[in-house]
Amino acid sequence: MNPKVLVAVLATLSAASPAGVQAQSVQPSRTATHEAASPVLVSPDDWRAMAEAGDRYPMFSAERARVEREVRAAMAAGINVPRPRDLGGGITHEQHKANYKAIAGAGALYRMTGDRAYADFVRDILLAYADLYPTLSDHPAGNSPVKGRLFWQALNDSVWLVYSAQGYDAIRDTLSAADRRRIDDDVFRRMARFLSEENAPYFDRIHNHATWATAGVGMTGYVLRDPDLVDRALNGTAHDGRAGFLRQIDELFSPDGYYAEGPYYQRYALAPFIIFARAIQQNEPERGIFARRDGVLLKAVDGVIQTSYAGLLFPINDAMPDKGLTSEEIVTGVAVAYGQTQDPRLLSIARQQGRTLLSPDGLGVARGVADGLARPFEFRSMQLRDGPNGDLGNLVILRQGGETGQALVMKNTQQGQGHGHFDRLNWLFYDNGSAVVTDYGAARFLNIEAKNGGGYLDENDSWAMTTVAHNALVVNETSQFGGDWPTGETHPTTPLLFEVADDAQIASARLEGGHDGVVVTRTQALLEHPELTYPVAVDLLRVRSAAPARFDLPLHFNGHIITQGFEAEASVTTRPVLGAANGYQHLWVDARSAPGDEARSLTWLLGGRFYTYRFSASAPTTAMLVESGANDPRFNLRREQALIRRMDGQSSASFAAVLEPHGAYDGTAETVTGATGRIVSIEQARGEDAEVVILTLASGRTLVLAVADDARSTGRHAVRHRGQTYEWTGAWARFDRESQS
Amino acid sequence: MNPKVLVAVLATLSAASPAGVQAQSVQPSRTATHEAASPVLVSPDDWRAMAEAGDRYPMFSAERARVEREVRAAMAAGINVPRPRDLGGGITHEQHKANYKAIAGAGALYRMTGDRAYADFVRDILLAYADLYPTLSDHPAGNSPVKGRLFWQALNDSVWLVYSAQGYDAIRDTLSAADRRRIDDDVFRRMARFLSEENAPYFDRIHNHATWATAGVGMTGYVLRDPDLVDRALNGTAHDGRAGFLRQIDELFSPDGYYAEGPYYQRYALAPFIIFARAIQQNEPERGIFARRDGVLLKAVDGVIQTSYAGLLFPINDAMPDKGLTSEEIVTGVAVAYGQTQDPRLLSIARQQGRTLLSPDGLGVARGVADGLARPFEFRSMQLRDGPNGDLGNLVILRQGGETGQALVMKNTQQGQGHGHFDRLNWLFYDNGSAVVTDYGAARFLNIEAKNGGGYLDENDSWAMTTVAHNALVVNETSQFGGDWPTGETHPTTPLLFEVADDAQIASARLEGGHDGVVVTRTQALLEHPELTYPVAVDLLRVRSAAPARFDLPLHFNGHIITQGFEAEASVTTRPVLGAANGYQHLWVDARSAPGDEARSLTWLLGGRFYTYRFSASAPTTAMLVESGANDPRFNLRREQALIRRMDGQSSASFAAVLEPHGAYDGTAETVTGATGRIVSIEQARGEDAEVVILTLASGRTLVLAVADDARSTGRHAVRHRGQTYEWTGAWARFDRESQS
Repeated sequence: MNPKVLVAVLATLSAASPAGVQAQSVQPSRTATHEAASPVLVSPDDWRAMAEAGDRYPMFSAERARVEREVRAAMAAGINVPRPRDLGGGITHEQHKANYKAIAGAGALYRMTGDRAYADFVRDILLAYADLYPTLSDHPAGNSPVKGRLFWQALNDSVWLVYSAQGYDAIRDTLSAADRRRIDDDVFRRMARFLSEENAPYFDRIHNHATWATAGVGMTGYVLRDPDLVDRALNGTAHDGRAGFLRQIDELFSPDGYYAEGPYYQRYALAPFIIFARAIQQNEPERGIFARRDGVLLKAVDGVIQTSYAGLLFPINDAMPDKGLTSEEIVTGVAVAYGQTQDPRLLSIARQQGRTLLSPDGLGVARGVADGLARPFEFRSMQLRDGPNGDLGNLVILRQGGETGQALVMKNTQQGQGHGHFDRLNWLFYDNGSAVVTDYGAARFLNIEAKNGGGYLDENDSWAMTTVAHNALVVNETSQFGGDWPTGETHPTTPLLFEVADDAQIASARLEGGHDGVVVTRTQALLEHPELTYPVAVDLLRVRSAAPARFDLPLHFNGHIITQGFEAEASVTTRPVLGAANGYQHLWVDARSAPGDEARSLTWLLGGRFYTYRFSASAPTTAMLVESGANDPRFNLRREQALIRRMDGQSSASFAAVLEPHGAYDGTAETVTGATGRIVSIEQARGEDAEVVILTLASGRTLVLAVADDARSTGRHAVRHRGQTYEWTGAWARFDRESQS
Repeated sequence: MNPKVLVAVLATLSAASPAGVQAQSVQPSRTATHEAASPVLVSPDDWRAMAEAGDRYPMFSAERARVEREVRAAMAAGINVPRPRDLGGGITHEQHKANYKAIAGAGALYRMTGDRAYADFVRDILLAYADLYPTLSDHPAGNSPVKGRLFWQALNDSVWLVYSAQGYDAIRDTLSAADRRRIDDDVFRRMARFLSEENAPYFDRIHNHATWATAGVGMTGYVLRDPDLVDRALNGTAHDGRAGFLRQIDELFSPDGYYAEGPYYQRYALAPFIIFARAIQQNEPERGIFARRDGVLLKAVDGVIQTSYAGLLFPINDAMPDKGLTSEEIVTGVAVAYGQTQDPRLLSIARQQGRTLLSPDGLGVARGVADGLARPFEFRSMQLRDGPNGDLGNLVILRQGGETGQALVMKNTQQGQGHGHFDRLNWLFYDNGSAVVTDYGAARFLNIEAKNGGGYLDENDSWAMTTVAHNALVVNETSQFGGDWPTGETHPTTPLLFEVADDAQIASARLEGGHDGVVVTRTQALLEHPELTYPVAVDLLRVRSAAPARFDLPLHFNGHIITQGFEAEASVTTRPVLGAANGYQHLWVDARSAPGDEARSLTWLLGGRFYTYRFSASAPTTAMLVESGANDPRFNLRREQALIRRMDGQSSASFAAVLEPHGAYDGTAETVTGATGRIVSIEQARGEDAEVVILTLASGRTLVLAVADDARSTGRHAVRHRGQTYEWTGAWARFDRESQS
């Protein structure tokens, strides 16, 4: 139907249908009469508003045009419901994915245009599924512990159900009773049964895969008018609330909206939470689902945006590093959250996403953006407490300079289940729009069949999850918790300090038992100083071990090395591997210094800015420059470099460091400024129960960060260094001294 | 002066100064009376138009605002004319650079605003130079063969002169006679003398450094009304035309506007040519400088744009790979060329550059863009002949799909003087906005003092210039011409074929004597086919050697390896170096196959698209995957990977290959399509005097490229392969056959 015809139809309808009557704005010719077939996931008024939006709201009409293109292409290609065969990325996998998108899109377009061809297309695909689905048993490929029927893992079947239920809801009242019964029974009810009965233990898990399952089953329940399915989805197969969607909301998010597996999976998990919650709100507003736990689902939307930098999510845990705010799930989250809160800051994120949903909430976002209501999203320093009760560690974000300024991320969370890495007290640093101190994320080529079927690679275990692959302390060349994540789940990190003061942002946390008998305390701060162009990141790590041990502290960094500020033997003609296991087998050694007491430095260049890292320790260390890629015959790893500081034979030690962004390189203008940092030295000194890191600037002034061993201390501390005494009360202090000369 | 005051001044002036009278639009208070001090590089009318432009043309007002900010910052910082000390990137170097920019900018602003403070600032800086300059001898740092006085190399002194002469011209009539004489004599005349007399052999070279010198001296000549200086600049120190600017125009550009050292230096060389030519046009229009040699300077501007991809110049020879169309020199070239031609295609480049000059030509560009005159720049297939007479090889560019489509670049040029690489018959391939088959460019960190003072690194000789660092044939592990560039200059490449037909774009060239007794002929084509989503690049290289030899054919590629389509032994726990010299010492070996006859393949992923390279040869080869970075203790090299095909013991051989872009990976949408290419095999076959490359598609159809050994042949050729005979007349043919099944 072209727009002019649509306008004419709407004009006729609005004359014929008095406002307020629950008539569809575009009247489908009903072949079924049963009242209980009309849509329940979107209200008639909302469908009408979407139909009448026309071209007034560019983001909405763009999305409508996009969906039209996609659906028309699918209609032109004809019904294609293949017998399942392939892994992720394979032909049948991608076709079933395309089908649920087509079902959802065509359903919406039918409601918006009244064009029966869309409804018939949805019907015909679903009838093809009604033919196929009852003939299927477990998917033939892959090795998922919970196989799907359409897909290699049940997860994807659940996603299919979430999207297809929406499309089906939109056209269900156009069907003959016989067709409706077939599709109800042979597709939706069977799939719901498959997910919630035949895989009841899976369905009852407190895990994001199960959230997709509960969402699919619950939405099917609303569409089929089946309260039992809805209740099973909300309260678990035993209908007792010990499992199901509500329990998932209560357990999978912390009170601050942080999701245990980290931002990448928070993004992924968000979609079914948000989509199903929206359906619950539509059908049972009395549940106040978005207000549950002080609005934790809306906090989760805010949180996933906060855990991003320059549009990309912090890639901690099993994360694909190219995943960002433009992903469909976050588009969904922003639209639905805006629908609930009308928070204008979300509109600037929507604008950055460049698209929104073909839904009532999407219409609201598009209207808000078109009306100029968007306000900047405030990326701010914060801690996101982890754990259902907020007592299982935190993710710290210290920011300065807004979205593309400095961001120091400190990972003091709990384990993050099976997708968690062994990287407690890890940190990341962003500046100038780029990741400077990096996290590898997952070893995976998502959906690329040639790379282990698109699933996690073996190198995810052997490298990406290991401690040495992170900026975290490795003890005796072994990963935290022996690389066993259930053990990790029983050892939360303990936050000690989080403070955003005028002259310093600082956080501290402690991990006990990451290695047997070992306690690690790490304090990090973002400090500004009039002589420094940008804030600097100061790092103080203290370790106590029951027995003398080998401590390795890696720094994975991004950029081209400009100055290696220490003597080292370079591996020039043959490149050895650093170790045999626990990630070390993947590291080539490029340079290795002799053990030494002196402070050292490393300067690199990234994106037109220089970074100088200065580091010292309480006992002699060896500095090594390494690169990932050893023992990687299939080229599964990205080759990335790291600095490793190694200390042997100590049972108590401290590592201090500062990272200074400085200067500018402009390749176009051929100008270089500030290629040398302003910090000229780093020193550290211990007192009885406290430690100081002394940074000396080129001017001779000093900038000192003083930290008590007990970061919750309120007592008085003193540390002497080179004839000066630094005295303070409480957990920490900063001393700025003029030049002594 | 704020804009309102400026408008008032202009209103007063335009009432007082009848149009047509040669009064300045903004009347500086004259302290000097000598008529011959008024500006000669920009006309009074042009200064008036610039002053009156106001905010009507955003690109112009933005540039004016930028220059104002820069100049005001310089004025606030005060006069700083330090005694020269540092290399490129160092403090005194950068200060003298900043000074000439301030001189030029402040001069223009004085003319545009009438604000005497700008003129006085220029005067005061130049008086400081008048104090300093006569006391200087050779610059104390660096090892340039032609040292400057202000800078470590005379080149930068010349650039200083080119820019400062413009600023001086703008304010010279504001000076007292005594100041003018001091600056004339102790700065400009002395610098001109230093460049053109004390360094006469340098000045008389036919080389881009000398062009900066002639431009500086010639513009000084116009400003000081010194015809002898002008003539020396135009015709050389002997005034006989055997050297100097005119000779440089005649010799340094080919008839197609190609500059012998390649695009990177063409960009750099362009600036003095264009700036000085513009000054000549202003002062001696009767010379028709822009029409000289059929408009070669304007062709050079077009050519430098054509030799770019996605805004970056092809990095052949000693090129910094981040240099692109936004560089100041090309901004200058586009503005001046537009001023001469009014070609509206140049305006789209200017718009992409996002800035223009604070000059009459810049005003014209800004006005054209503001008036909506811009038309798309047509990036097209072309050959740029090399050499003053166009008979020293060519640079071939085969394009499809416009600016960010496919571009195959074939380097069949001459040597390119001392900045040329030993990479004759090298090729590059671009697709989807990225370099896919790459060129390392120069080993250099421009102006970064910690990296060899910002100059060329040792690795420029030991790696970047070598043949193995390029996609060119290496014979017996030695570079072309033994790595001796003067020898290279005596051996041009011979273009054999360049044809852009409906169904194929093809080029061929031959190099004789790159290695003793060796002749290499290479034919490359960009072929479209209905079953292929994108054009594919076909490569056929034939070598004949007087003695059996080792042939190594590298392919330097960009992307993550997805499928290594051949068996090979991987270097998993120790990584050996490939060789001892000629670039081989910088290559780590990651995998090495046994010698074999079979065709092989390699698939990688870059920027969301897959690339499959299929390759065969006429005799058994070993395939090796290598990475640069060995013997690089200072981390001077970027680590980049290559495939090397090695054939031993043959004296006559052919190497065939095809590179197919295919499919899509979308990390945001998590979709993958076309991860497997449509070409399933490559075969090659020889006839008596010709060869064919047979590509079989997934459908069974074949696509065959047939090439005569003599690409200038007009005769009949036949090649038999698997019972089929391919017969054609002339240099080449393409055969598309249906599936035989």
